[in-house]
Amino acid sequence: MEKMKRAERMVAITQVLMLKPNVLTPLSLFAERFGTAKSTISEDLMAVKESFILSGQGHIETVSGASGGVRYIPEIAPEEAKQFLSRLSELLSNKERILTGGFLYMTDLLFDPSVLRPLGLIFASAFRDKLPDVVVTIETKGIPLALVTAEALGLPMVVIRTGNKVTEGSSVSINYVSGSSRRIQTMSLSRRALEPKRRVLVIDDFMKAGGTALGIRNLMTEFEADVVGIGVLVEARMTEEPKLVEGYLSLLQLKELDFYTGKTSVVPVVSY
Amino acid sequence: MEKMKRAERMVAITQVLMLKPNVLTPLSLFAERFGTAKSTISEDLMAVKESFILSGQGHIETVSGASGGVRYIPEIAPEEAKQFLSRLSELLSNKERILTGGFLYMTDLLFDPSVLRPLGLIFASAFRDKLPDVVVTIETKGIPLALVTAEALGLPMVVIRTGNKVTEGSSVSINYVSGSSRRIQTMSLSRRALEPKRRVLVIDDFMKAGGTALGIRNLMTEFEADVVGIGVLVEARMTEEPKLVEGYLSLLQLKELDFYTGKTSVVPVVSY
Repeated sequence: MEKMKRAERMVAITQVLMLKPNVLTPLSLFAERFGTAKSTISEDLMAVKESFILSGQGHIETVSGASGGVRYIPEIAPEEAKQFLSRLSELLSNKERILTGGFLYMTDLLFDPSVLRPLGLIFASAFRDKLPDVVVTIETKGIPLALVTAEALGLPMVVIRTGNKVTEGSSVSINYVSGSSRRIQTMSLSRRALEPKRRVLVIDDFMKAGGTALGIRNLMTEFEADVVGIGVLVEARMTEEPKLVEGYLSLLQLKELDFYTGKTSVVPVVSY
Repeated sequence: MEKMKRAERMVAITQVLMLKPNVLTPLSLFAERFGTAKSTISEDLMAVKESFILSGQGHIETVSGASGGVRYIPEIAPEEAKQFLSRLSELLSNKERILTGGFLYMTDLLFDPSVLRPLGLIFASAFRDKLPDVVVTIETKGIPLALVTAEALGLPMVVIRTGNKVTEGSSVSINYVSGSSRRIQTMSLSRRALEPKRRVLVIDDFMKAGGTALGIRNLMTEFEADVVGIGVLVEARMTEEPKLVEGYLSLLQLKELDFYTGKTSVVPVVSY
C-alpha cells in the first residue's frame, strides 16, 4: 500500500475511532496499517485530539502502558444538548399527542434513531462518572433509549421483562404497582441475564408515580446490584406529590396534560 | 476563529458526517464554519471520500443541486462482515446456550451494542437497494436489531406489540401462531404508528416456522404496506420443512440443537 499523507492518516484514525466508541485501539494497529512509526502516529493523534476538543463532540482518550491505546469517548456539547431538549419539549407539547386516559404519545420519537442518539449521549454524559457496569431497562418503550445510552457508555444492556415470560432458566420475579395502570403487575429477570453485584444504571422513558422505578430498584437488590443512577426521559410533574423513588434524573417534565381542554405542556429540566 | 489547516478541516468534516449517518449536510455549512470558500471544501471532501473508499467502512455521497450536500452512508466491508458472522456463529454454537424446551439463549448478544452495530450494517447493506421507508419489528428481542438497522439506513422504526396492549388510539390486531409457542397469539399496531402504503423492511431476531413473520406480513396488508424485505438473524434449519413465508434473508442458520446430548450448531449463511 502506498504511504499515506498526514491528512489521510488523520481521517483514517478518526474513522476507526468513531466507528468503535469506547473501544481501546492500540497505537501499533495504526502504525502497522499505515506503515509508519509509532511516533508519527502519536503526532497524528495529537492533531486529531485537538480537532475533537474544538468541535465539542466527544474527546479522544489515551491510555498508556503495554495494554494501552486510544479511544473515542462520544459526548454532546452542552449547548447542543440544551437546544435539542428544548426542541423535543416543543414537539411533545402538541395537543395531538394527548391520548385517551391522559397519556402522552411519545412512541414515534422514542423509536426514532435521530432523536435517540442525542438522548443517549446526554444520559451518558450525566452518568459516566458513576462508573456503571450495565444499563438496565424494562420492556418495551424504554429499550431503544437504554440501548443508545449503553452504546454511548460502551456497556451492555439488560432488559427486564414484564409478566412471567422469561424462558431463560431460573428467574427472579417481583410484583409492583405501575403508576400508569394502577394494577399490580409482575416484572422478571433471568438469573443469567445479570451477574451479581453489578453497578447498574436504570434508564426508562417515562415516570409517573415512580412505581416501576421502585420495582426495578427492588428487583436489583435480588441481584445484589448497586443502582448508581436512574435516568428517565419524561417525568410527570403535574402535582407536587413526591415520587416513590428519590435521586433520579429526568430530562423533561410534563407539567400539564388536560384531555378535555387539549392543553399540554412539556418543559426541559433546567439543570441536570 | 483561527483559520484551520487542511488536515484539521478534513478531520472536522469526517466527524460531522459520521455523527449523522445518512443526513445531508450542505457544503455551505462547512464553508461557513471553517471560514473558507466552497471550492476549498470540495477539495477537502474529495480527499475525505478517497479515505473512506480505502477503508471500506461506508462511503461519502454527494447530492448536487440547490438542496444538495454531502452525506455519510455507513457500510461494513464484506470481508469484515464474513468474519464477524463466523465469530458470532461460534459464540452461538456453545452448549451452555441450550435452554430447556430446545431454545437457544441469544439475549446477551441481542442486547450488546458492540454485536448489534455490525449486524445493523449487514442488514442495511443487504436491503438498502429495496428503498424501504421504515423498519418494522415485533417486541421484545428484535427491537435493538431493528433499531441499529434503521439507524444504518437513516429510517424510523415501528414496533408491533404482542397482545392487545396498545393504548395509542385505534389499532389493528391480528391473530397468529408462533412457531416457538405453538399457541394462538395476538399482535397489534396503532394506526398512528404507521402511515398507509409505506415500503416496509421487517427485521427480527429468530425464525422457526415463520408464523410470526407471516403474521407481520398479514398485519402489514392492513396498513396497505409493501413488505420489501424480511431479515432475520437466526433461522432454525433443523429439518427441510418449508417456512410459512418466502423470500426472507437469514444471516445465520441453527442446524442442530439437542437438549439431551448438548449438541448445538449454528453456521453462517454463505451467500446473502
